[in-house]
Amino acid sequence: MKDGCFMDMKVAILGGGGMATACATLLTESSDVAVSMWVRKPAVAEDLRTHRENKRLLPGVTLSEAIHFTSDIDEAVADADFLVVAIPTEFLRAALHTLAPHLQNGTPVISVIKGIEQETFYRPSEIIADVLGPRPVVALGGPSHAEEIARRLPASVVAASGDIQLAKQTQKLFSTDRFRVYTNVDIVGVELAGALKNVIAIAAGICDGGKYGDNAKSAIMTRGLVEMNRFGSALGAEPATFSGLAGVGDLITTCMSPFGRNRKVGERLGQGDSLKQIISSMDAVAEGVNTTRSVYDLADEKGLDMPITTEIYRVLFEGKSPDDATQTLMTRPQREE
Amino acid sequence: MKDGCFMDMKVAILGGGGMATACATLLTESSDVAVSMWVRKPAVAEDLRTHRENKRLLPGVTLSEAIHFTSDIDEAVADADFLVVAIPTEFLRAALHTLAPHLQNGTPVISVIKGIEQETFYRPSEIIADVLGPRPVVALGGPSHAEEIARRLPASVVAASGDIQLAKQTQKLFSTDRFRVYTNVDIVGVELAGALKNVIAIAAGICDGGKYGDNAKSAIMTRGLVEMNRFGSALGAEPATFSGLAGVGDLITTCMSPFGRNRKVGERLGQGDSLKQIISSMDAVAEGVNTTRSVYDLADEKGLDMPITTEIYRVLFEGKSPDDATQTLMTRPQREE
Repeated sequence: MKDGCFMDMKVAILGGGGMATACATLLTESSDVAVSMWVRKPAVAEDLRTHRENKRLLPGVTLSEAIHFTSDIDEAVADADFLVVAIPTEFLRAALHTLAPHLQNGTPVISVIKGIEQETFYRPSEIIADVLGPRPVVALGGPSHAEEIARRLPASVVAASGDIQLAKQTQKLFSTDRFRVYTNVDIVGVELAGALKNVIAIAAGICDGGKYGDNAKSAIMTRGLVEMNRFGSALGAEPATFSGLAGVGDLITTCMSPFGRNRKVGERLGQGDSLKQIISSMDAVAEGVNTTRSVYDLADEKGLDMPITTEIYRVLFEGKSPDDATQTLMTRPQREE
Repeated sequence: MKDGCFMDMKVAILGGGGMATACATLLTESSDVAVSMWVRKPAVAEDLRTHRENKRLLPGVTLSEAIHFTSDIDEAVADADFLVVAIPTEFLRAALHTLAPHLQNGTPVISVIKGIEQETFYRPSEIIADVLGPRPVVALGGPSHAEEIARRLPASVVAASGDIQLAKQTQKLFSTDRFRVYTNVDIVGVELAGALKNVIAIAAGICDGGKYGDNAKSAIMTRGLVEMNRFGSALGAEPATFSGLAGVGDLITTCMSPFGRNRKVGERLGQGDSLKQIISSMDAVAEGVNTTRSVYDLADEKGLDMPITTEIYRVLFEGKSPDDATQTLMTRPQREE
């Protein structure tokens, strides 16, 4: 492959959600690559092929004729030079098992997945290595609402991989004049930040629901970032990553956007609802709820001081009131920043 | 003074604004100190003394009988053990000149001022040293809307001083169960962050006014923080400070609060208004406008790469459109994070 030239190359996208579709629009805009998108249900693939629109997730966004939609996994990934994986963490392992027999050895994987596997605490790239065997993997992270990207609003993200050449290829593949990609070698930090931010988003949502004010919400996000960093560093991440797009950048959108599910869970806790009430009225459990439990357990095991995560755990699973949790946080021993 | 005991001590507060009043409420709640507050106009001091309420800035907040309001500077600062300075940067030098003959040598100063002197680019603590002579100074920074503090909503801030004992005394003086104070030795970073954030708030406001979306706003704040850090480090600040309460914490409130003047200037620029139109309709120039000019000049002099500051400068002073500035930022050479 000539540097910066992707002619006659093929990218296969796994997933039919908003982010998968946004990736397809970016790739067809930025590069001369062939893009095939694997969608599980034949009827959905047929609908996308015919109407060139994802009516449910991205209404009004015309999808390029250059995107080939198929429900045939073999057709989707045959001869793919890159595989983009955009499957929610909880369905990832099963989807990869379906894919595995069809994928060539060594095909590099671009993951746009945020989250952590609850049972194993594996990051997406670790699940990919576990199922598909060792291969180059890059993680795309940062503030990236799919709908905004698909509508060509400006966004900046980070492509992280221990394989810096793959990170640079990903940068070239995805960059447009509305989508700026930075590179970073710290895939551990980028992936962990994408999962840990959901815990802090619950705390930020509690500030909203309890009407604690702007000072409190900013402080909990800032001190939450300190905890994310402390936890990530213990697991091998680089501290600088948490000051970057996948860290503070993604944390800001997640804590501020009124639509985020994790922030919403916190908001309702702050308004006095119990976790049981909240779960029974949502169509899926917000990921931060389970992540809080995993992070709490692992921090405890490693002896890490995680006061905000601990209080969110107590509120979620032990019925502690948000006001009491706030009081505990505010009256801890005085210390240096 | 016994460690942690402030009995029979006196704190003089310089200033009659919201932050000065919030400090007075904190001090009377947290410590056994005598608090005197110097207000320039005798009628205002008399009104505060009589009604125990700052009707304009903090309506509904009852001010403790323990606060002594006076317009007599000598009475205010006589025998003060600490001086709290809460005067806007542009009036600080003149106020300190009035104060100087009345203040004892060596009285430590607690500055709650955010901003930079436009002509000299002096930080508040440097102006204080310039006028009052060398003495211990501590800067209180972080997300701290005065009204929320006075209403006992939770807030966390940082007390920074090269004199760590003074930072710890300040921590003890101000801490309540709703106001948490961390210490930090990097006063340079805390003071610079408090001024530099106003430049980035203009950029964040442009994202609001131009409806660029959550991704863009988070990215400009994150990359703005990288610039604040780069500039601060060149002037002797510690990088870690910019990841703390005075850095990212204060940046978040400033960029998110709908009431902030700097964000508002950006919002109107994003909506298509010119700086001239905006200035003519505001009762005072937002500080970030002048700070942008100073930072731009100094960065240029020092050869620092400050792409966001540069584009804000072009939009403010050279009539570049926000859309063109965005395009310039999004199409810069690809790089690592």
